[in-house]
Amino acid sequence: MARTIDLNSDLGESYGPWRMGDDDAILRIVTSANIACGAHASDPETMFQTLTLAREQGVVAGAHPGFADREGFGRRLIPHTTGEVERLVATQIGTLMGAAALAGATVRYVKAHGALGNWAAAEPEVAAAVARAVKAVSPSLALLAISGTALDRAGRDAGLPTFSEIFADRGYLSNGQLVPRSKPGAMIHDPEEAAARLVDFLSTGMMPVIDGAPIRLEAQSICVHGDSAGAVAMARHVRQRLTDAGIALAPFLDAAA
Amino acid sequence: MARTIDLNSDLGESYGPWRMGDDDAILRIVTSANIACGAHASDPETMFQTLTLAREQGVVAGAHPGFADREGFGRRLIPHTTGEVERLVATQIGTLMGAAALAGATVRYVKAHGALGNWAAAEPEVAAAVARAVKAVSPSLALLAISGTALDRAGRDAGLPTFSEIFADRGYLSNGQLVPRSKPGAMIHDPEEAAARLVDFLSTGMMPVIDGAPIRLEAQSICVHGDSAGAVAMARHVRQRLTDAGIALAPFLDAAA
Amino acid sequence: MARTIDLNSDLGESYGPWRMGDDDAILRIVTSANIACGAHASDPETMFQTLTLAREQGVVAGAHPGFADREGFGRRLIPHTTGEVERLVATQIGTLMGAAALAGATVRYVKAHGALGNWAAAEPEVAAAVARAVKAVSPSLALLAISGTALDRAGRDAGLPTFSEIFADRGYLSNGQLVPRSKPGAMIHDPEEAAARLVDFLSTGMMPVIDGAPIRLEAQSICVHGDSAGAVAMARHVRQRLTDAGIALAPFLDAAA
Amino acid sequence: MARTIDLNSDLGESYGPWRMGDDDAILRIVTSANIACGAHASDPETMFQTLTLAREQGVVAGAHPGFADREGFGRRLIPHTTGEVERLVATQIGTLMGAAALAGATVRYVKAHGALGNWAAAEPEVAAAVARAVKAVSPSLALLAISGTALDRAGRDAGLPTFSEIFADRGYLSNGQLVPRSKPGAMIHDPEEAAARLVDFLSTGMMPVIDGAPIRLEAQSICVHGDSAGAVAMARHVRQRLTDAGIALAPFLDAAA
Repeated sequence: MARTIDLNSDLGESYGPWRMGDDDAILRIVTSANIACGAHASDPETMFQTLTLAREQGVVAGAHPGFADREGFGRRLIPHTTGEVERLVATQIGTLMGAAALAGATVRYVKAHGALGNWAAAEPEVAAAVARAVKAVSPSLALLAISGTALDRAGRDAGLPTFSEIFADRGYLSNGQLVPRSKPGAMIHDPEEAAARLVDFLSTGMMPVIDGAPIRLEAQSICVHGDSAGAVAMARHVRQRLTDAGIALAPFLDAAA
Repeated sequence: MARTIDLNSDLGESYGPWRMGDDDAILRIVTSANIACGAHASDPETMFQTLTLAREQGVVAGAHPGFADREGFGRRLIPHTTGEVERLVATQIGTLMGAAALAGATVRYVKAHGALGNWAAAEPEVAAAVARAVKAVSPSLALLAISGTALDRAGRDAGLPTFSEIFADRGYLSNGQLVPRSKPGAMIHDPEEAAARLVDFLSTGMMPVIDGAPIRLEAQSICVHGDSAGAVAMARHVRQRLTDAGIALAPFLDAAA
Repeated sequence: MARTIDLNSDLGESYGPWRMGDDDAILRIVTSANIACGAHASDPETMFQTLTLAREQGVVAGAHPGFADREGFGRRLIPHTTGEVERLVATQIGTLMGAAALAGATVRYVKAHGALGNWAAAEPEVAAAVARAVKAVSPSLALLAISGTALDRAGRDAGLPTFSEIFADRGYLSNGQLVPRSKPGAMIHDPEEAAARLVDFLSTGMMPVIDGAPIRLEAQSICVHGDSAGAVAMARHVRQRLTDAGIALAPFLDAAA
Repeated sequence: MARTIDLNSDLGESYGPWRMGDDDAILRIVTSANIACGAHASDPETMFQTLTLAREQGVVAGAHPGFADREGFGRRLIPHTTGEVERLVATQIGTLMGAAALAGATVRYVKAHGALGNWAAAEPEVAAAVARAVKAVSPSLALLAISGTALDRAGRDAGLPTFSEIFADRGYLSNGQLVPRSKPGAMIHDPEEAAARLVDFLSTGMMPVIDGAPIRLEAQSICVHGDSAGAVAMARHVRQRLTDAGIALAPFLDAAA
């Protein structure tokens, strides 16, 4: 049985005068922060503030690059060559590293955002481009990918320290993929249901699915959300229940390199 | 008499489908390239291509951060706190470093662009903010500043390797400042006049001014332009005349750290 | 004594995935809506939704152009020529009119936002440029300006239907200007204090100031805010108290041209 | 035989400090100008200058809306709902109309740009959304569409004045579609070959194709390009050869409404 697990969440998604999510609250719950890099969200001030808060809370900082599409929040698939994906990812990691240098923080890992993340999860060539970009910026950067995806494999193939995540609030199919958002069972809304499922998974390594027998999944991290009051409450409940079950919350990497 | 001098120019100022300047031609003339970082100009593709070309030509790469103002090309003074200036500069250096990692190039120095550069040249607090940002990203980064300005002093005060530049095509005043663009004598249009002045300066250390006796200036680099056919021709002529006078063209830093 | 008054507020300031203000609540309180035009805030979807909501509530729609500066929310003074101000304002009005055509709404007036509004309030040449832009788009468009400013005069000089506003929550000086935000007395935080002052003003035409005897001001509209829960509560209280005092709330123009 | 024909070209595609195309030259050749509206290219200054030049040359102004994607120049298909397409198109037409009001010009028609144009050409629902947006802004606006496409039909179905265009420099297939750019025969590079084909088409109504017998096409306009010196030369040659053949060049609409 797993005795420790990481909790990660997307953070630093404000932009200019606009606020998104309750970063202050979520940084007291999670152990790793996927921080937007100024393309689908954020700006230099937001990056600096989020990195400063993360450092103060002992939360490990990761880069969360996405398509340069603020209006679509990086959720629209915008055509790119794999070379363009490499440049997109490498420059965004660099941007966050520049802010981290001022904030006294260290960018330790990379998780792809939104449509870029989905694309890299499904397409080996895109996944390899993301992994190449991460490795070029620094071979000591880790990759955080959805368990069992093309990106998960590409990270390991590239020799990057690669960690796998599962979702606190999403249903699974027997092929290991998430239930599409348009289908029943896609979302878990009840905090206790989500927490109980995770506690059970961490004890057995088996994840229930909506279309068959539980499947085996690997995970070093659980993704929670912080973009609504309900999401923060669920994240807090998950943390409490894991702790109650004797599972330690700890980042998959140290905060400093 | 100076036996070597650096030639620098602003490069990588294209954006999306729009071209600016003849980077290919100017990279065969200069020894240091001030490369835009995606805020007043450029994008990940342009950064990558410019850094690749610079590496191939043995030209040293520097970051050229400016205000995030494409429509104004970074030439409009946009109000910022000094803290915001720090974040602006640090994130842009980081962005270029991300592209450099993919291009096999190294960002070795920083030169502030346009209105940000003018502001930092005049205001010690802004200059100090720029120097802090550069040093935070890496204390081994150099600063390239206009000879005798507040930024030039701030770089040295911060303990950064600081290099001073003069302009190939601008007239000087006896206080060491440039003749404002609105006044007669601001611009030198004749390539031979510009070249002869520079050869003379490098032998004597004295710069002619339009309102008195020549003044003493320090310079490890000469700034040339590449944004028009005439500018490229002047840059080429300056290089040829310096070489003919026995002055070696060499970057003020090595291309690799 | 005034028997009717308009209440106006800035609306439609969301952008992409980011929400700002409680437009739904404030549109049930005000009679005129200053709607952002996609430069300092908003996008085509936000404009369309705000115009649709305004139409449904019988609230008159106005264009609220500002500098093209999302990160600074149009609150930073960005250098422009007066010609550039004309083009900035005319194109933003046009943008909102395009959205209004789809929403079945009519853009009836223009109020300048943030730093552009402050600049036009103080500088007659900038004010004249704003008035020229409004008149060029349509001479039947009205101008809503701060009572007694250069923009207020420029609108009348241009022959535009011009209406003056006072602020529900700002202190005044004896010269008719607002108390700067950095000084004591700049903001009125107590809803009842704000409401009582407005009821009194509408009965006497005299506005209390912090540095002398009350002054005479002209106003056809009162500006309230909706960007926080407290602001919405104040706006609601002001409306209630005006109504209780027998003052009808009505737009200064009809919703349809 | 057609005795008059329109020549149209994409114009006003500069942005901030970046120039694109030789608008001055092409405005002396064409009779209708498809002017970018600030989303995939252009800004308020460029719109104003292009509209002013068009008016001075007696060239009819049309709006050329595209995806809000400067880096991709509107050539990447970005996912949108049909409702979003409506708002995108209506706001861009409005923006150009705002600039036209200042320039003393009138926006008379709409032609969709790049990936938006291709999508609307192929998908009836997208085409209908474009037509609805145009009609909502003004039922007197015309639509310029590629001959035989879904957009061409949608314009007529919506009761809009709809005009069809053919391309001066593109090869055709027997199904009426263009030869894909990746295939031999896609582009016609020789100005005389292009001109001769057009003269012949205007006399017979029959267009040669690369995979069969000539087909019948309707066209009130010919699209030429101005984004390179070669393109301007071809446009000039086409105009000369049409004139020599006794075919009058005239816009499909009057410049003023």
